Amino acid sequence: MSKHGLEQDMETTLVKPRSRRDILKMLGLGALLPAAAGVLSACGGAPATASTAATTTHEDAANGTHAATTPAAAGTAQADWEEMDRMHEAGIKAFPAKTAGLGNQPLAPRGENGVKAFDLVCKVVQWEVAPGQTVEAWCYNEQVPGPEIRVVEGDTVRINVKNELPESTALHPHGVIVPNNMDGVPFITQPPIKPGETFTYEFVARNPGSHMYHSHHNSTKQVGKGLLGALIIEPKDRSKDPDYDLEYTMVLNDQLGGFTINGKGFPATAPLTAKRGQKVRIRYMNEGQMIHPMHLHGMPQLTFAKDGWNLPQPYMNDTVNVAPGERWDVIVDCTELGVWAFHCHILSHAESEHGMFGMVTALIVEE
Amino acid sequence: MSKHGLEQDMETTLVKPRSRRDILKMLGLGALLPAAAGVLSACGGAPATASTAATTTHEDAANGTHAATTPAAAGTAQADWEEMDRMHEAGIKAFPAKTAGLGNQPLAPRGENGVKAFDLVCKVVQWEVAPGQTVEAWCYNEQVPGPEIRVVEGDTVRINVKNELPESTALHPHGVIVPNNMDGVPFITQPPIKPGETFTYEFVARNPGSHMYHSHHNSTKQVGKGLLGALIIEPKDRSKDPDYDLEYTMVLNDQLGGFTINGKGFPATAPLTAKRGQKVRIRYMNEGQMIHPMHLHGMPQLTFAKDGWNLPQPYMNDTVNVAPGERWDVIVDCTELGVWAFHCHILSHAESEHGMFGMVTALIVEE
Amino acid sequence: MSKHGLEQDMETTLVKPRSRRDILKMLGLGALLPAAAGVLSACGGAPATASTAATTTHEDAANGTHAATTPAAAGTAQADWEEMDRMHEAGIKAFPAKTAGLGNQPLAPRGENGVKAFDLVCKVVQWEVAPGQTVEAWCYNEQVPGPEIRVVEGDTVRINVKNELPESTALHPHGVIVPNNMDGVPFITQPPIKPGETFTYEFVARNPGSHMYHSHHNSTKQVGKGLLGALIIEPKDRSKDPDYDLEYTMVLNDQLGGFTINGKGFPATAPLTAKRGQKVRIRYMNEGQMIHPMHLHGMPQLTFAKDGWNLPQPYMNDTVNVAPGERWDVIVDCTELGVWAFHCHILSHAESEHGMFGMVTALIVEE
Repeated sequence: MSKHGLEQDMETTLVKPRSRRDILKMLGLGALLPAAAGVLSACGGAPATASTAATTTHEDAANGTHAATTPAAAGTAQADWEEMDRMHEAGIKAFPAKTAGLGNQPLAPRGENGVKAFDLVCKVVQWEVAPGQTVEAWCYNEQVPGPEIRVVEGDTVRINVKNELPESTALHPHGVIVPNNMDGVPFITQPPIKPGETFTYEFVARNPGSHMYHSHHNSTKQVGKGLLGALIIEPKDRSKDPDYDLEYTMVLNDQLGGFTINGKGFPATAPLTAKRGQKVRIRYMNEGQMIHPMHLHGMPQLTFAKDGWNLPQPYMNDTVNVAPGERWDVIVDCTELGVWAFHCHILSHAESEHGMFGMVTALIVEE
Repeated sequence: MSKHGLEQDMETTLVKPRSRRDILKMLGLGALLPAAAGVLSACGGAPATASTAATTTHEDAANGTHAATTPAAAGTAQADWEEMDRMHEAGIKAFPAKTAGLGNQPLAPRGENGVKAFDLVCKVVQWEVAPGQTVEAWCYNEQVPGPEIRVVEGDTVRINVKNELPESTALHPHGVIVPNNMDGVPFITQPPIKPGETFTYEFVARNPGSHMYHSHHNSTKQVGKGLLGALIIEPKDRSKDPDYDLEYTMVLNDQLGGFTINGKGFPATAPLTAKRGQKVRIRYMNEGQMIHPMHLHGMPQLTFAKDGWNLPQPYMNDTVNVAPGERWDVIVDCTELGVWAFHCHILSHAESEHGMFGMVTALIVEE
Repeated sequence: MSKHGLEQDMETTLVKPRSRRDILKMLGLGALLPAAAGVLSACGGAPATASTAATTTHEDAANGTHAATTPAAAGTAQADWEEMDRMHEAGIKAFPAKTAGLGNQPLAPRGENGVKAFDLVCKVVQWEVAPGQTVEAWCYNEQVPGPEIRVVEGDTVRINVKNELPESTALHPHGVIVPNNMDGVPFITQPPIKPGETFTYEFVARNPGSHMYHSHHNSTKQVGKGLLGALIIEPKDRSKDPDYDLEYTMVLNDQLGGFTINGKGFPATAPLTAKRGQKVRIRYMNEGQMIHPMHLHGMPQLTFAKDGWNLPQPYMNDTVNVAPGERWDVIVDCTELGVWAFHCHILSHAESEHGMFGMVTALIVEE
């Protein structure tokens, strides 16, 4: 059914320019995909990372040698799948791809008379979601997600929010029990923070767990564009949490910039790494508008907390369905060596004809 | 970064007509939103409530004074955010907005020889979803949702359904264990109820809990247009339910009329009110086609029943993901004073550039 | 409000051709629906099953008699609902409709020195989703879903995958704990299986439960087109599973071919049957891109396993929300006699103006 060798290569080469356009056309949205941006660059398209562009160029050159010596021939289908495989491979080889900017970085508090104070500045920045794919983001401290705010149950927390956006904003500590006037809902609990203004939130961290902070003003747009972050309250008494050796937070989003984990789309997502035998805690947080059933290959996940509250009965599963606004905490017991794919199982959030993109990363378990 | 005072006002005024159109255009669907309908009325658009229209008109007039005395100037961005804030504020101030019609009202049964009999008439009516936003609804007893049918476990229930719709219908007691010929599925368990006909459903209420009734004929349209309601069976033995002081039902829908709670979109939704220290039971029922993760600010929710069946292990959370056809029951312990936002956390079901709309309400906890 | 008798019949007949087009137009996608394909055939539309086409033709002929003797009259609404009811009835009467091909058939393993070996061939075939609705499917062994692979915990399993597709592929044993190089992710754990090639997967079945196998290469397309199947690992020790008398698997999909259960849309779906008093285990598996809250009429479902892992605390419900990639196992205690509708409760996945279609079947409980 399939041809091999020189003849195949020749056909592949000659139809390549058309087949690329055909695939894009077929997808309708190909130009938006990070992997597409990468592998297409050799045709003079969007800018790309060095790594993916180089891979594609090499293939083009190799095939080009044959092209000059052969007549035109039918064979688009053949060409398409080989090119498709190259695109898929290029995406994987580019992982983890370097991009400008890194979100969810720990923010050290300033100590102010027993208060842990954090400064957040809301800004418009250019954010590189995946190699060559840069979008306008609205975010905190030039990070998407904003910096991680981490405190301990019982801490007094102060968050100074300065608004350098072109419109008003407000910050809602999502899931955190706070006094009403610290809840961050304009015209209900406070006036909006106008451009140029600063507002200070202050509360005692009462309920431990995986929480979030995000804009609650014009929020479909503002959260969509990146005004979101993790707010983690560690329990005073850690004995009620299951044991774990290390932890990761995965903030999911599906709006401007496409499908992202911690502000990046594959191959720019960061892998999770662990040593064999370690227990990894993962904090899923959905700041998007769609569900994302997160499927880890190779090892099950022990789901033990919902929205920061420990479940009375943890349960095992391999696909954790995270709805908008929800947080789920799981433990993965890293018993299996290897590189394990880890992605949203709505497949169109994770793979196209051009290869994996969006909500894909990997858990790497090493000796 | 921002200007203040007279100069700003002048710019605001001059660009206002354009900025409104721009925002609508940007949204694509702005005209469909209740808040939009309200604030746009001053421009000669759709009809609006007195309250939101008045607010906007006042602003227009105030700015208009300056407009006549100032030259044109750039500054659309500035104007946009101030206008946006006014729209947001107007929506909040209008809450809870008065609209014609109230759904989910208790329906007193007639006693008929030990049977609790309820009469439902299926009708086409005009239904005001939000101030100035009226749609054609198909519903029971001129209510969306239809009247609440509430009985006690063990009761014999009779429901007379008269069809005054322009097409056939049938009533399915969703979640209730009934004899097969009372299940309400045309051509499987009964002939359809044709226009002008009446059909009587009768069954013993065996399984307590939060259930629903709705059309099961041409149901995508008929349920979408409002042929739905709550059917609550109280348990004979209430000792297995958690304690609570008062209860609310929230029927969610996302079809004709947009995103609604009990047939109304914000600001026409009804707030939930409680005294501090009271425990409130909320019965979520999804009659729509999308998930709705319902997020309450300020206090967690103890989820204790699914589809009317008590869970063996209730659990705490703040975002309850309700899928179509599901019912979830929760207890909120009202420990925190204030007005707490309460909304679907798919943000585009709750807020636009014009402010909150759709699936938004508030829990008000008072001393 | 409604007319009866001869006059009504006359009007019905005359407006019929127009009302059909109107309904289709109103739906926008009516032509894609299996039920539509059936009932439309009398107008010279798509091919249809004998059963539904015959029903409609009979009605046409009967009304035609009157048509010749009466003048034109208004009355489209009347005509529409009667025709709508006929379409609904025709769909139900056609159930379960015979179509070519049956998926999810048990595949007997070859014994190879203590190994259970299964041969899968990936192929492009024509697949009849519903009567008269045939689509191009990409699938295993000419079945959608592919054949059921069923082994026992501790078995050594060998799966030979031959690729006769026009592009590369790979097989991922979804939910199964396997060595990394057997995980089926091209360019991460193996090279893709090119057209014409065969790849052999081998692993010891360690974790019992309801799992799946599917393509993990160009998967949005390949899984969407049918490269998916059930992989069930029975536990060595069955004492930890609840008791049941018989079992069914329901593989859900929502891509090419529309909304399907085990590769078929209503009325071509297979009913589940049981004797009164039997306990039925249902294994839900979602291979689609949307949630599907599966609602069974008449009897509750005891949910006891998630992704193959038994829950510490099973719970009762009537609507089981299955997200992409998830598997849920339930027990239905068949206490109630009759034909019980069983469908996805996103109503647009189950019913249109033309009647039930897509994700609809029935549980039939007999003495």
